[in-house]
Amino acid sequence: MTEIITSLQNQTVKLAAALKQKKQRDVTGLFIAEGVRLLEEVHLADWQVEACLYTEAALQHKRTEKIIHELQDKGCRMLIVSEAVYLKVTDTEQPQGIMAIVKKKNQLLTRILQADCPLIVILDALQDPGNVGTVIRTADAVGASGVILTKGCADVYSSKAVRATMGSLFHLPIFDGISYEEVVSSLRIAGVNLFATSLASSNLYYEADFKKPAAVIFGNEGSGVHETLLNQADSAIFIPILGKAESLNVAASAAVILYEAIRQRH
Amino acid sequence: MTEIITSLQNQTVKLAAALKQKKQRDVTGLFIAEGVRLLEEVHLADWQVEACLYTEAALQHKRTEKIIHELQDKGCRMLIVSEAVYLKVTDTEQPQGIMAIVKKKNQLLTRILQADCPLIVILDALQDPGNVGTVIRTADAVGASGVILTKGCADVYSSKAVRATMGSLFHLPIFDGISYEEVVSSLRIAGVNLFATSLASSNLYYEADFKKPAAVIFGNEGSGVHETLLNQADSAIFIPILGKAESLNVAASAAVILYEAIRQRH
Repeated sequence: MTEIITSLQNQTVKLAAALKQKKQRDVTGLFIAEGVRLLEEVHLADWQVEACLYTEAALQHKRTEKIIHELQDKGCRMLIVSEAVYLKVTDTEQPQGIMAIVKKKNQLLTRILQADCPLIVILDALQDPGNVGTVIRTADAVGASGVILTKGCADVYSSKAVRATMGSLFHLPIFDGISYEEVVSSLRIAGVNLFATSLASSNLYYEADFKKPAAVIFGNEGSGVHETLLNQADSAIFIPILGKAESLNVAASAAVILYEAIRQRH
Repeated sequence: MTEIITSLQNQTVKLAAALKQKKQRDVTGLFIAEGVRLLEEVHLADWQVEACLYTEAALQHKRTEKIIHELQDKGCRMLIVSEAVYLKVTDTEQPQGIMAIVKKKNQLLTRILQADCPLIVILDALQDPGNVGTVIRTADAVGASGVILTKGCADVYSSKAVRATMGSLFHLPIFDGISYEEVVSSLRIAGVNLFATSLASSNLYYEADFKKPAAVIFGNEGSGVHETLLNQADSAIFIPILGKAESLNVAASAAVILYEAIRQRH
């Protein structure tokens, strides 16, 4: 007989619920990945799962059943929880009844700088977690070397950002909470060209040379790239606005520039 | 003394609340634009405002006060409502205390087809209103001639979509609820090249010729462009995925392709 956890006082259930808060994610180095698709990605990418929580109802879906067995075979801690407990812990509107507590991966910034002709994405103080996730998905799609998030950026490990990455979080190195000094000095040492996007620039993005090692900074939705970073960039580039829109969505800007880099490189 | 409406039974208040539902927006031909920025855009673009609802507290912000006076001068119906009433009617998490009931604009599809070398965006059954809004914002940014939404597309007049357009809804012609037959026949008559995005295509998007009159179809987040449209397109194009991502976000895809069209045209 399988025991079903019905108590919100269960330590793992309490931990899962607490991980909705950034502070708890920071302290524990853990976060939540929810839904069958994300769990498949976690498993494929071999990220460490501390525990997997699921409902009995979720077992009725073949794809979910499969991933549960795979995590079980790996030796993961598996907890069946009641619907009521799951609903208290979930952060999604249409929960699939399966989530995992996943350990963040610590990676060295220097590693991506040693890549062959790196293409690096820098997110400076983005406030919307959906934008953070969508840019990471696009960075993955162009085969970028990694994504750097400056201090003050929306948390990439929040449920909304994790969801928006559509699994790309597990595909390429992500570095968060990096200071401006560290960004600039490490890129400079590695000889990477630092581009900052700026509406005030007069250099068209498609006239920039992306064939050399490059990093591109995308700024906050309201205020753009911080002056400190802008001043230290090798050049500022802009995407022309031909209509009456004031600006582009930051994830749309990132897609435009990253794909231009790829077009030039291929 | 100004009368403050405190009753949820007030007819205009009831109408504003009812407009959260697509059915009511369809029947009345009205929708809600909320927040000072969107109201400035409505005013600038001279869309018809049926009524403006605001709280006394909102008057404390200069920018809000200004737009209230401008709408008043135009002869708009202005209603001061209590905080409690406003909170019942609003659809935003951090309401600014000002919204308007706006009349949809009926525009003729043929008009945009007569533009000089039109660039048209077609959204086929997108399900996320945020994506619909973000693509419209990008379409505005590239100076597109208009945006066509097929039947079954998320409602462009929902609060989430309106917000995501960041005002671009009021900048370029939008046509919703258009059938596949109408899309294809009208574009064909006008001699517009019809491109469909498809992951199964082997034509790189940047090898397509966007210098001629062009329309590009972007498909549903899960299933892509519907077969019926795909089969009738002049050509299918794709954006290469170099990393491990399965696909791009649809608003990111639209940004990549629309800006490539612009790069070729300038």
